[in-house]
Amino acid sequence: MLTFLNDDKMLIDEAMSTALFAGSSEYDKIVEAMRYSALGGKRLRGILTLEFAKMFGCETAESMAYAVGVECIQAYSLIHDDLPCMDDDDMRRGKPSCHIAFGEANALLAGDALLTHAFTAISESDSAKNHPERAIKAVRILSGYAGFRGMVGGQVLDLEAAEKVTDEKTLSLIHKLKTGALIRASALLGCSAAGADAELCALSEKYAEEFGLAFQIIDDILDFDGDYETCELNSYVKIHGLEKAGEDALSHIQNAKTALSELSEKGFDTTNLGDLLDYLVDRMNK
Amino acid sequence: MLTFLNDDKMLIDEAMSTALFAGSSEYDKIVEAMRYSALGGKRLRGILTLEFAKMFGCETAESMAYAVGVECIQAYSLIHDDLPCMDDDDMRRGKPSCHIAFGEANALLAGDALLTHAFTAISESDSAKNHPERAIKAVRILSGYAGFRGMVGGQVLDLEAAEKVTDEKTLSLIHKLKTGALIRASALLGCSAAGADAELCALSEKYAEEFGLAFQIIDDILDFDGDYETCELNSYVKIHGLEKAGEDALSHIQNAKTALSELSEKGFDTTNLGDLLDYLVDRMNK
Repeated sequence: MLTFLNDDKMLIDEAMSTALFAGSSEYDKIVEAMRYSALGGKRLRGILTLEFAKMFGCETAESMAYAVGVECIQAYSLIHDDLPCMDDDDMRRGKPSCHIAFGEANALLAGDALLTHAFTAISESDSAKNHPERAIKAVRILSGYAGFRGMVGGQVLDLEAAEKVTDEKTLSLIHKLKTGALIRASALLGCSAAGADAELCALSEKYAEEFGLAFQIIDDILDFDGDYETCELNSYVKIHGLEKAGEDALSHIQNAKTALSELSEKGFDTTNLGDLLDYLVDRMNK
Repeated sequence: MLTFLNDDKMLIDEAMSTALFAGSSEYDKIVEAMRYSALGGKRLRGILTLEFAKMFGCETAESMAYAVGVECIQAYSLIHDDLPCMDDDDMRRGKPSCHIAFGEANALLAGDALLTHAFTAISESDSAKNHPERAIKAVRILSGYAGFRGMVGGQVLDLEAAEKVTDEKTLSLIHKLKTGALIRASALLGCSAAGADAELCALSEKYAEEFGLAFQIIDDILDFDGDYETCELNSYVKIHGLEKAGEDALSHIQNAKTALSELSEKGFDTTNLGDLLDYLVDRMNK
């Protein structure tokens, strides 16, 4: 694994643990459920935030609250996704999902609390004190991309599509919203933390959009066990075949690299974000 | 009903309807569920926001996004509270609750979307553009008071207490968090919109705290049908008796008036916020 990925992940884990520290015994139960679900995972979204911020000159200490924000949203969405009325998944990351471990009501509330805390993390940060206009922009991005025009909108479409084979256009919209929106937000939060201008934001979002599409396809490729019959109905592999899925993933990676080279030409150090794309491809080829 | 209550309510209803307008047919289903639950109610919290803002010199057009924010939080909390894993209520405000009308998954997501949209409303507002430091403070207040240290924390305690008679101290904490936190936030959002200083915020929060306590007790009095046996376990009336409940409500109203008279001495027009207290008392005596 790339060194910076490990370093970023460790710092994010530490910051999440501090953010979700039970300050008072009255709240122990809900905080326990929040920590159970929010401490873990690859932290890809938070890493994108930190790396975009760093590329544009913002220290990790300053952008960390934004990474915590996006990781809180990611954690809440997984808890609510696993609930019986949604995907009804008993396991998550190799352990019982939140509602199995803490009961449905507590899982619902832990999700609500994590979603809410995303905005506490950003608004209580030093960045919010020093650069309120950056912090409120981050709130606008995160809430917009996570809400009914973004991630939640994608979940609604996904629910509707769960029972039938979806057409290509709808599937692409679901990916764009359900997974893609939060990945785009992650990059833009890094831009906000650094106060990057509109042109830099647009190139960053382009990278993140292509990254998200590649990420989703590669996930479907890794989930594919070689049998098209038992394959999940709306898997990219089921719809397009394994070969085209691999080609398309690489083509999205290439598009992300193009966005990155424009940033590189402007003098920014794009090494880590380039390595991250290679890391995705390595994952696919394993 | 007081004229300003009606006027504020109408303006809030209108702003909520605009905020939750389906811009694209793809999102129609989730927006429909959001509108179903979010359009209606007394709007007491939003009214507090508008009235505190007005008292401190901020126009309603400028503070409306903050009122919409707190009303989105209130609406989401009712949807999630009604879910089968929580209070399992089939009816809300005289019509089928959201999960009865739209199914559990859509109700869950509509609640998530409303919670998220609270922060979109504030961060997309003109106020956020003109006064980012006020908007980010509002985000900090709303997320803090609505999260695990506030409203959600109160819901967790309430769940734990639902099965047994709770001691007075725990009951008071539940009220303080579950209902009180968002009412205090409502007043403070009005203060933020107007850029009020710390002393004015403290007096405003004191008013709201006492208002919230009186409001909760009066609700329990109005719910009481005269029979202590069938009375809800943790009703203020059940625990303290009807007479003391009435006295305590009036004493909280009196404390709120004291906070208000300090604001009046500083030259602010406290007429509406005073009338609002009398309106609460009238409700109780009906």
